[in-house]
Order: sequence, then C-alpha cells, then structure tokens
Amino acid sequence: MTAERVRYDPAELHAFVARALIAVDVDATNANLVATVLGASDLRGIESHGVARLETFYVDRIRDGFVDPRAREKTVRETATSLAVDACNALGHPVGHRTMLRTIEKAAESGCAVATVAHSNHYGIAGYYAMLALERDMIGISSTNAGRLAAPTGGRDLMLGTNPFAYAIPAEAGDAFVLDMATTTVALGKLEIARRLGKPLEPGWAIDANGAMTLDPAAGMLGALLPLGGYGTENGGHKGFGLGLLADMLCAVLGGGVMVPDMPPSTHVLDPAITSHFFAAIRIDAFRDVAAFKADLSRLLGEMRASAPSPGNARVYVAGDLEAEREREHRRGGVGLDPVVAASLERVAEKTNVRPPRPIAAS
Amino acid sequence: MTAERVRYDPAELHAFVARALIAVDVDATNANLVATVLGASDLRGIESHGVARLETFYVDRIRDGFVDPRAREKTVRETATSLAVDACNALGHPVGHRTMLRTIEKAAESGCAVATVAHSNHYGIAGYYAMLALERDMIGISSTNAGRLAAPTGGRDLMLGTNPFAYAIPAEAGDAFVLDMATTTVALGKLEIARRLGKPLEPGWAIDANGAMTLDPAAGMLGALLPLGGYGTENGGHKGFGLGLLADMLCAVLGGGVMVPDMPPSTHVLDPAITSHFFAAIRIDAFRDVAAFKADLSRLLGEMRASAPSPGNARVYVAGDLEAEREREHRRGGVGLDPVVAASLERVAEKTNVRPPRPIAAS
Repeated sequence: MTAERVRYDPAELHAFVARALIAVDVDATNANLVATVLGASDLRGIESHGVARLETFYVDRIRDGFVDPRAREKTVRETATSLAVDACNALGHPVGHRTMLRTIEKAAESGCAVATVAHSNHYGIAGYYAMLALERDMIGISSTNAGRLAAPTGGRDLMLGTNPFAYAIPAEAGDAFVLDMATTTVALGKLEIARRLGKPLEPGWAIDANGAMTLDPAAGMLGALLPLGGYGTENGGHKGFGLGLLADMLCAVLGGGVMVPDMPPSTHVLDPAITSHFFAAIRIDAFRDVAAFKADLSRLLGEMRASAPSPGNARVYVAGDLEAEREREHRRGGVGLDPVVAASLERVAEKTNVRPPRPIAAS
Repeated sequence: MTAERVRYDPAELHAFVARALIAVDVDATNANLVATVLGASDLRGIESHGVARLETFYVDRIRDGFVDPRAREKTVRETATSLAVDACNALGHPVGHRTMLRTIEKAAESGCAVATVAHSNHYGIAGYYAMLALERDMIGISSTNAGRLAAPTGGRDLMLGTNPFAYAIPAEAGDAFVLDMATTTVALGKLEIARRLGKPLEPGWAIDANGAMTLDPAAGMLGALLPLGGYGTENGGHKGFGLGLLADMLCAVLGGGVMVPDMPPSTHVLDPAITSHFFAAIRIDAFRDVAAFKADLSRLLGEMRASAPSPGNARVYVAGDLEAEREREHRRGGVGLDPVVAASLERVAEKTNVRPPRPIAAS
C-alpha cells in the first residue's frame, strides 16, 4: 500500500473501539478491555491484529450472532496453581485479560501457575497477555490456537492454525524480552500482500492444494501455510509443525476445548467458541533475587544488541525491540492506519451509529 | 558413513557405560543414570547424543579434571512449586534426572512446578527429562543452554548454543507427543556430515565468518549455525533466534548460571560448570480428567497421522513418531553403532581398564 496513512491519537482509537462495542451490547468493562488489547497491537506496529479486525472479527460477528457480547466466562476447575476456564463464547480479549491476571495472582501466591480457556474467540495478539506479567516481575507465557491455515510437515491438508506462542521476561528499567511468534513461517497476511503486489512468495512459506511448494501467492492461498522451518524436514519444518501442535495441545486438549480436527476445514475462523487459549506465569524471585535477574538479563540483551551485525544489517535486534521502538513512535506521533483500515472504521461507525474516530489533522 | 554398523544389546551398552564411569570415580548410582540417559538417546536413534559422546564429553573430561565425578548438587532456593539447584560441576545427567523427578513430585503436590539447574555440564537429550513426566500423567518440559555455535538473526558473532526445548505429552496406550528440538535450523553434526561427504549445505543452515550465508560446510564450520527459520527474517529466523535466547533466559538467567556472553567464545563447550538446564511439569488432572485428555490427544495425533501426505511422502509423522519406531526396532534387534563410535568405546575400555562391550554376533 503506497497510499498515505491516516494518523490517530491512540486514546481516540481506544474510545472509538469501546463506543462501537458498547453499541453492539458489549458491557463497558469488556469493551474497554477489547479496545486496550487492539490498541496495544496497533501501538506495537502489529496492524493485522489491531483495529483492522474490529469490523469483521468482532463487530460483525457479534451483530451476526456468532459471538455472545453478554457471555460471562465460568471457572470449570481450579487449584492454587491452575485454572480451567470456559469462555462460553464470549469475546476472547476480556476473558484472556482476566484469566491472565488470575494466573498472575496464583503465581504470586504459589510461585507458578497455568491456565486454559476453552470455547473462546479470537483474542488478538498473544504478546499482550504475556506482557501483563512484566510489571509483576514475572515471566509471562501465552498461546492460542486458531483456524485451519497450515499443513503438517509432509502433509497437505489444513490441519493447524498459525498457533502463536508469546513469552515476556522483564529486564531493567522497563526493558524486556518479548517474543510473540506464529508457529508458521509467515502469517496469511504475507501471502495476501504478495498477491496484491504481484510478487512471488519466498520458498518455505506455502504449498499449493496438491501439497507442492509454491511461490505463487494465489496458489498458496488455495493451499496451505507451512510451519516455521518451511517445506519438509531439511530446514526444520517438523520443528515448527511440532510447536504448532503443541499450542493446540496446551490450549484445546488441556483446556477441553475444540481441537483442530473438530474445527471446520476452512481457512477462516467462522464458527463461534472454537478458539482456546493457554496462559502461564512464573515468579522470578522463586529462583533468585529479582534485581540480580534483571541486571543479568539486561546485560544479556545488551550483549546481543551490541554483537556484530551481518552484512546489510545495521544492528542486531532481540525479540520485542522493533515493537517497543514502534510503540515509542506511535505514542509520540499517533498510530498511522492504512486507508483501507480507516475506511473500515468509518463503516463500523455507520453500522453501530457511533461517532467515528477523528484523525490527527495533517501537519 | 557406509561402513557396516556394529550392533549391541542395549543392556550390554548400559553396563559398559556404567563400568567405565565407575572406573573414573563416578558413584554407581550416578554412573547408571548417565548410562540410562545415553542409552535412551541411542534407543531413540539420536546417535549424536548417545554413547558416541561417552569418550570425549564425559570420560575424558572427568579424567582431565574438568567435570567433578564426586560432586553432589545443592538446592539453592525452594518453594512448593519451584526449585533452584546448583549442580556444583557434577555430570549433567544425574542432576537433571533427579531435578526433573523432584519437579514432578512438586507438580504432583501442587499442580505445576518449575526448576532450574546452574553450573552443570552436558545433560544429553532434553527429551529424556521431559519424558519422565509421561508415566505420571503430566506434561513434561525441559531445556538446556549449550556452547556458542549460532549467530543471532542479523548478526555474525557466536552468541547462542543450539539450545533445545523438549515437550512430552501423554496419549493413550503409551503413545505420546515428544518434541525435542534444537532451536537452530540444524545441529553442527549436519555440517560435519556434509563436509565428510563433500556435499553442499542447504540454504538457511549456516553463515561464514563474515556473516554471509554459505553452502560450504567448511566455511560454515568457521562461521556460525543459523537459528530455526534460517538467514534473515523472511523465513522466520528471528523466531528461532528468540526461542534460542528464551532457552538461555529460562536456564541460565533464571537459574543464576553462566549466561552465553560469559561463555568462552568457542564452538566447543570446554569450560566446566557453564551449562544450565530448565525443567517443568504440569498435572493434566488439574485441568480435566486424564482419560478424557488422553482420548482427545490420541484422536488429535491420529488425525494428523491419517491426514493426506504431500507428494513424495508416505505419511505424516508427528513429533516423536520416528524416534518411537526406532526404539521398537532397537529393542528388538539391538542398537547399531557407527564403527567410529564402536572404536571410541574400545578406547574408553582401554583408558578405564574395563571390559569393552560385546557386539551382537553377526547373524
């Protein structure tokens, strides 16, 4: 997209998302939580998981009766260190937020804790939930399964989602390691962009409907994404496949949710309540003093960043560096949205009969 | 290697490993634990981490005074759900085995538990420790850091080990998901084999000393391995880099051990007590009934295995399938070792003045 981005104040976007969701019968607390998670995604520069999805993933799905805006999650099983939650087809973000906070409280009491959420819906970026642990001096972990988009290594059926894992670990002075990664080589969005631009895919991104590796974006979109590591086992595709399956096991099998074989064989998550999540938190001071831990982690991150770049690279980035940089920029200068996304927000405003967000005036 | 393999009964190899270690002053309990872990590796077909390493990684290092055969680990910090252990430069396998068992006991009491081990040595395959959780109906996790062999994404310095993660999850009737994966695209052994055979590397395996991708095995061995996902970020190399760093954080930073910047800048782990490990266990019945969990997991694994293979593949394998197949073969027909490995066992027998293992007579 070469069209100029439309810039918004993050608070303006937040208020708009909340207004729109309240208009489709989401209560104010939950609407604000969704706005917070979508906003965190846009602030960190992960546009695909931010307000870009407000219309089709959340507002439309509520209006069409797929997601229950008034559902309240239930605790199915609970111990001092564990929590199995049934989201009862609620929006994924508020349930995810509350469940991660409960996981953190349990870890604060017990040292570590693990939680699952079944029968939920799309929860946005996994990294948001893992990062909730940072200010509590804990290690945060989150994962989710997702609709069928990827094939197993050596296979050609759609048997896996992009199933991300996120890990957040606090260093000194607000610095942190934040890894938030799909277990496929790339997300579907990369194929869509390549198709739009008429550019070939990279090897290792996708297979066609017959299971052969393809560089044709259209063929890849009719085929399947490949697990991290790419086609076959030569470059470790079986490792990405294993990690993707692991996510389905920790989220759906452990949580008693909908496993991927029971999801519709489609490239789009349309059925309600088929998404499952996983959360964990570990108290750092159960192992060593937090200040010493953070000092060591800062030194480790610093040495990585200061190590020699390879040709063509200005420096080495560790997980979360680029996102933190974008967040600083966006807090200063506003969040720039693709005009297509800005237009979808205008449509949401019309559908829900609320005031659209006001862009920052061009300077 | 095309030379014919030398076959041994697994029990004969086990007894030999124990004899040799006892001869270099390891106590019988610990010697048997090392033999068990090395044996598990050979049984599962992971020859690189089995008795192939007995001579140079364990016997020689004890004889040269690097590893303390009589050291006993100490508990540094402990709660109902956590355990920080100092291995005091002991052999990694017995400390790892005991620490994972203690982690499992804590999880049995508390629901989940996490442990670290600092100042340890090479502990063999990560999968062995994760798999100890299987018979207790738990999810087992293990990781270790390792000597500098890999470069960060966008970098060219040796800043990471192959840092594996292993996850073991029980299904019905002894079936299981067992993912045991280095976080580099390949291990160094793949480069050694390519050099021996005069074959080029695959793209994404290694960089040369200047940080450029190379297909030359010799140049790669003077350069660095690449993280899972390969060169640059196009195929997700930053994800593998993030996972490798995560291992260093969970093992060394959380455990208060030796972080990679403090390791010698070499491609070989030679310094004693610089390896750190991580263990975790999660009780399945904290979330749902074990029988229902296993039935679902068996169905999930079954659907993956039964899904359509891509051209050139007979079927889809899930993590641990090939290793379990090899274990069945090896238990039936014995473990076949490369003649080079068999010769190293003969050398160990000479050095330690114990009886060498007797091969199975050729039929």
